[in-house]
Amino acid sequence: MGLADLDQQQLDALAAGTTQAYAELQERGLSLDLTRGKPSAAQLDLSDELLTLPGAGRSRAADGTDVRNYGGQKGLPEIRAIFAELLGVEVDQLLAGDNSSLSLMHDTISWAVLHGVPGGDGPWFGRGVKFICPVPGYDRHFSILSSLGIEMVPVALGEHGPDVAEIAALVAADESIKGIWVVPTYANPTGAVYDEATTRALLEMPAAPDFRVFWDNAYALHHLTDTEHPPLDVLGLAEQAGHPDRVLVFASTSKISYAGAGVSFLASSPANLTWYLDHAAKRSIGPDKLNHLRHALWFRDADGVRRVMRRHRELLEPKFALVRAELERRLGGLGIASWTEPEGGYFVSLDVPDGTASRVVALARAAGIALTPAGASFPGGHDPRDRNIRIAPSFPPEAELAVAMEGLTTCVLLAALEQQGVVEV
Amino acid sequence: MGLADLDQQQLDALAAGTTQAYAELQERGLSLDLTRGKPSAAQLDLSDELLTLPGAGRSRAADGTDVRNYGGQKGLPEIRAIFAELLGVEVDQLLAGDNSSLSLMHDTISWAVLHGVPGGDGPWFGRGVKFICPVPGYDRHFSILSSLGIEMVPVALGEHGPDVAEIAALVAADESIKGIWVVPTYANPTGAVYDEATTRALLEMPAAPDFRVFWDNAYALHHLTDTEHPPLDVLGLAEQAGHPDRVLVFASTSKISYAGAGVSFLASSPANLTWYLDHAAKRSIGPDKLNHLRHALWFRDADGVRRVMRRHRELLEPKFALVRAELERRLGGLGIASWTEPEGGYFVSLDVPDGTASRVVALARAAGIALTPAGASFPGGHDPRDRNIRIAPSFPPEAELAVAMEGLTTCVLLAALEQQGVVEV
Repeated sequence: MGLADLDQQQLDALAAGTTQAYAELQERGLSLDLTRGKPSAAQLDLSDELLTLPGAGRSRAADGTDVRNYGGQKGLPEIRAIFAELLGVEVDQLLAGDNSSLSLMHDTISWAVLHGVPGGDGPWFGRGVKFICPVPGYDRHFSILSSLGIEMVPVALGEHGPDVAEIAALVAADESIKGIWVVPTYANPTGAVYDEATTRALLEMPAAPDFRVFWDNAYALHHLTDTEHPPLDVLGLAEQAGHPDRVLVFASTSKISYAGAGVSFLASSPANLTWYLDHAAKRSIGPDKLNHLRHALWFRDADGVRRVMRRHRELLEPKFALVRAELERRLGGLGIASWTEPEGGYFVSLDVPDGTASRVVALARAAGIALTPAGASFPGGHDPRDRNIRIAPSFPPEAELAVAMEGLTTCVLLAALEQQGVVEV
Repeated sequence: MGLADLDQQQLDALAAGTTQAYAELQERGLSLDLTRGKPSAAQLDLSDELLTLPGAGRSRAADGTDVRNYGGQKGLPEIRAIFAELLGVEVDQLLAGDNSSLSLMHDTISWAVLHGVPGGDGPWFGRGVKFICPVPGYDRHFSILSSLGIEMVPVALGEHGPDVAEIAALVAADESIKGIWVVPTYANPTGAVYDEATTRALLEMPAAPDFRVFWDNAYALHHLTDTEHPPLDVLGLAEQAGHPDRVLVFASTSKISYAGAGVSFLASSPANLTWYLDHAAKRSIGPDKLNHLRHALWFRDADGVRRVMRRHRELLEPKFALVRAELERRLGGLGIASWTEPEGGYFVSLDVPDGTASRVVALARAAGIALTPAGASFPGGHDPRDRNIRIAPSFPPEAELAVAMEGLTTCVLLAALEQQGVVEV
């Protein structure tokens, strides 16, 4: 029975129970953290062969390059070959970088601002550049833009991507729109998976020659079910669409090997890669190829990566099941909340009654449960409906996660009852 | 006897001998490389314990942080403590980064262009910013500036630094001058060591509040003699001078551990570090702390680094001695060339007769000896006197180096004789 269907007596009983539950929650003196999509220690342990690799006397690439020395701007061919297969791109189109794909995204956008991109008419600096930002989305994507003074134009993200007709209309009306963020597979935070039709439409729509799709395939291999959504051949589709330079593909092993010591990847058209490498050469004499070699030796081949990902799934799936079960058990049928059931990735996106997300986060914090700030998944940290909360179940052990979810659902319920005036704030 | 003192008969004999020597050189079909300051394989071998570190089951910092996971923007405290001692800065003032200090320099300048720096009045973009560039200097420093459209103002580099009175006059006359490159210890390529008086003068001179000294102490620990020039307390001196935010200190283990897989460092004032960290947080969720841990375990403490540096010296000193001996033997007393005798670092700076450096490099290339392009040590690759050649002796084995030096000196002599009309071009 939904909250709206309860009579006053039932409401009062629910209010009393919830207030009591929250008081007990506060008394427990918890210190739990559901804020970030960090792998757990058990997940990191899966790749602990890296702690002794490449091994004594082993410092040569297959082509004889001494990976300890300078050079190799494109990254180690061995690791590029493995991830080219996994990401569905040509080895020649894929570069391997240091430990952070966020850095690659930051640098490409910074360099677009400072220098412009192929096909464009110069630096984006001071020209009122805007980006389309499907929401809810990834807060660190938005932070890069706001730090560079790039205005964000939010559009709603559906289950298979945003409405491209809406985007095409925006882009047609405003040529200062130069980019869009896309997390195509198991999007942060909703778990959306871009389908081919949406992707083709994004690549085909008319746009400025320096319009770029920042295709952050952070969770390309991070399946949670047997429905393993394969990566789209987005570079091939862009070429077919007549816009070969439109897409920059990003990926990393941050949630495959180590979050802080993995390998990042950039794939794109020849023109974009030449542009990237030209600027990267000003910045360094090459990425950490020794870490590339470690990873190539550890994974061996694409199947080695797939094996690791299955073990990640074994560790993550129960946590996502627990989140879903707890949401269903405590909030199911009340008509006050909805949540995503992602088939991969790192997050569950929870929508609570409009206007209560900030209150839920504050109530949880007061009870020792840290949540990502309400609104974090929106440009400027501003969720216009103040309803979205991102749940990151990966890091805490299951026992802690269960306590945190019970606490969170209590806070959701309490905030809803407060909003209805059944509980005094 | 100098070339100028020879009579025609002696000159003809020298010309015949040199032409003959060059012809023989060409016949040898050499392929030698003196271009870059790369460590040799034997130098890299010194740190090969890194190939198996941190070791099985070892992934925690002293403070319990799991170095495999995200976070730790300032870098691992252990490695920062070791290098704070070596560089003569406070641990709190020192950050550890990824494998390239060039990247830290590139990023700080890029962020100054995009955002401005503390004390300044906004981004440097589009404002005709200029840098003082002591010459000869490091070509990659100049490449960063030219890629960002920053104009370079060359000033002559003396044995103990540039003439600060000249710089102060330039800076006083032009407030768009916002920075200076300094390689304070064993400068690339001359081996100059900035003394305290020059440094104090640089820090005390009136300049714009957003004027910055980019203090690239790349060779701080890279002594080649028992005269070990210690690092100056440049941050303390800047504070004493009333300009605490004027200096950004850079260093790395690129020529201590591995050139491609080491650790970089940035030291500066609290205001500058806060500024740096604020922008770095947009770029990544932290540097590779696992590589920091590897290095901390390998070095153990500052003395561990000093021990490695003594072994580098053992490998490098004979090569520098060979270069010097060969220059002396073939060119000494002829009055056509002068060269530096560095007490540390990676280079020997050779001055040949004005107008012949490009010819020397071309002659050498035609004989299979690759030298850094003439002019590379000057902004825009333009040596106004076309006389400077940078010799990088570290990488080739001694036998190859001896052949390369014999060939190089033959080319110097041949170009000088051509210039005098004694040998036909």
